[in-house]
Amino acid sequence: MAFGWIVDQAEQRRRAGLVRTLRPRPADWPLLDLASNDYLGLAHHPEVTEGAAAAARTWGGGSTGSRLVTGTTELHTELERELAAFCGFEAALVFSSGYAANLAAVTALGPHGSLIVSDAGNHASLIDGCRLARGTTQVVGHADPDAVRKALVMHEGPAIAVSDTVFSVDGDATPLTGLAEACREHGAGLVLDDAHGLGVLGDGGRGAPHAAGLAGADDVVVTVTLSKSLGSQGGAVLGPARVIDHLLNAARTFIFDTGLAPAAAGAALAALRLLSREPGRAARAREVAGELHARLTAAGLEAVRPDAAVVSVRAPSPERAVRWAADCRTAGLAVGCFRPPSVPDGISRLRLTARADLSGAEIERAVRVIGEARP
Amino acid sequence: MAFGWIVDQAEQRRRAGLVRTLRPRPADWPLLDLASNDYLGLAHHPEVTEGAAAAARTWGGGSTGSRLVTGTTELHTELERELAAFCGFEAALVFSSGYAANLAAVTALGPHGSLIVSDAGNHASLIDGCRLARGTTQVVGHADPDAVRKALVMHEGPAIAVSDTVFSVDGDATPLTGLAEACREHGAGLVLDDAHGLGVLGDGGRGAPHAAGLAGADDVVVTVTLSKSLGSQGGAVLGPARVIDHLLNAARTFIFDTGLAPAAAGAALAALRLLSREPGRAARAREVAGELHARLTAAGLEAVRPDAAVVSVRAPSPERAVRWAADCRTAGLAVGCFRPPSVPDGISRLRLTARADLSGAEIERAVRVIGEARP
Repeated sequence: MAFGWIVDQAEQRRRAGLVRTLRPRPADWPLLDLASNDYLGLAHHPEVTEGAAAAARTWGGGSTGSRLVTGTTELHTELERELAAFCGFEAALVFSSGYAANLAAVTALGPHGSLIVSDAGNHASLIDGCRLARGTTQVVGHADPDAVRKALVMHEGPAIAVSDTVFSVDGDATPLTGLAEACREHGAGLVLDDAHGLGVLGDGGRGAPHAAGLAGADDVVVTVTLSKSLGSQGGAVLGPARVIDHLLNAARTFIFDTGLAPAAAGAALAALRLLSREPGRAARAREVAGELHARLTAAGLEAVRPDAAVVSVRAPSPERAVRWAADCRTAGLAVGCFRPPSVPDGISRLRLTARADLSGAEIERAVRVIGEARP
Repeated sequence: MAFGWIVDQAEQRRRAGLVRTLRPRPADWPLLDLASNDYLGLAHHPEVTEGAAAAARTWGGGSTGSRLVTGTTELHTELERELAAFCGFEAALVFSSGYAANLAAVTALGPHGSLIVSDAGNHASLIDGCRLARGTTQVVGHADPDAVRKALVMHEGPAIAVSDTVFSVDGDATPLTGLAEACREHGAGLVLDDAHGLGVLGDGGRGAPHAAGLAGADDVVVTVTLSKSLGSQGGAVLGPARVIDHLLNAARTFIFDTGLAPAAAGAALAALRLLSREPGRAARAREVAGELHARLTAAGLEAVRPDAAVVSVRAPSPERAVRWAADCRTAGLAVGCFRPPSVPDGISRLRLTARADLSGAEIERAVRVIGEARP
């Protein structure tokens, strides 16, 4: 029978306690949200939702085609210009998702004969980019510039190192300065995914590469997402104009995908302008994360010190992590629960996100609920 | 120098006449549009744009997380239910793009040890799905069920055949009945991309699989896009509930991507309801395509007989195709221009799309302009 093997896999998942289900949110979601990636609390901000609504009215429900045919509106160009300027890069190219942006950057910059050095903790979309690229991928130890250096020294020809700036699971940052040094010693390009840095790290939320003095460098390319701090959907690649021009000509997920919907571009642009006007939101997200970590640690929980807005708390097993998150939910608190295969090291954890708009009382309540539900 | 090789590639592209540039549309685009994939003319329909606007207001500018964490709203569930019912399938899963939906379907249904039989004319996203999948891919001749049969007979174990229903470049359809027979003789699953069929083919636009009596079959999985006939953004996989449940647990572009923005879900849902209420739009798109083809052929142009809403006209070379499209544009007509590497056979062409809302006078004008600009 076609697809018969699926039944066996479903049974194996059930036995391993790894079954996933969707839990649709109602419009009046009653939970305290420490699970989303809405780091600045902008997804429901009226300027952002009106930005989406106005863009849909002016530009239509969809972009109607590939960016290279009819799918580029002046709104896309405006977003690309302002995003590049905000983050300190020469040019930007917007995609329908951060996933698509990462596939584009890695495949277009890792051609046949090149070496791609990839951090062992990288996001799935970077890993899939490496697998799709024609170059050879070498996976190196997590957040280890020396390992990158050793990989690069063995290779002749074009090379890039690829890394998240802030890793999604544990919320830890890569040592950017050391990584850039390792690349420069060997003339390699550096491709950074700043999905969890934009809006949180750097001056006014300009991101981790900006904070490390790497913005605008001719050997650095950064991908970002519009769906986290900017409360919308989509992704972008930022870099030198010649690299962006190359992507536009060579990246399959740009050429063969429908352009980002106008509403998503409008929402992201509104959020970006709001953040430019209210730069304190970035610092507040970091402050909330620090407070969450301090209180969790004081309560005796094993939390990783956050480098951005993600706070990770280790759980004893997948089953107990699921139970822990479910008990939090029953008590009115939404937290993320990461289990295999979403965790590179196989360790399950609760994943908390620090939103800039969380109050002190909400932080206190969250920590109390997590402590009480502890397995 | 990092990325130095890009400069050489740019020069090669320039010499080959294959440089791509973005041409941003203003809000009051003055061109007659035969280039977009807005087959039913719904992208600017007030019900669709209001669907987007209302969804953004109610549900926020973004979905805030992975579909498995906070990224599923009741709006997503509603869209999935109505889309599955409309197309005649048990269940549906919505993605941020059709590209992501195709990567998901092929990778999750083509596991290690399986065979994936892929049509030589398949869309880039299906090809990338094959490259990412752990199974072995065998590429077979275009629209050739016997070639699929021959590939399947050589393989023991799980297998799928993967094909577009309507091919993007030439607008020709695959022989669905023969393809399904070939699969069933060997117990293989059939994965169909109906991006260009939904809204155009089948009863009231229910799509090519519905028209072929394959909708709801337990060995058939269909991907669609929300960004063409439905005037929005996103994609979906339709199939048996157990397959959809498998994707939800196993597909990386589902698990690790932010959920579709509410505005895009709202626009697609509004378009779907409109199409259900006004089923004649699908037949009208086919009628316009037939009329376009007849008039182009009468004018002595080499146009491929359309099986859906795409009409392809061959051009003598990439340079002349570009010039032809540019001259049409100067005369007020937007047409698509497909060149290598976007064409599997290396033949450049103009690509015209028949919108259901084109008037007879507009069709006449389009054909006149194309004929006059002929190289």
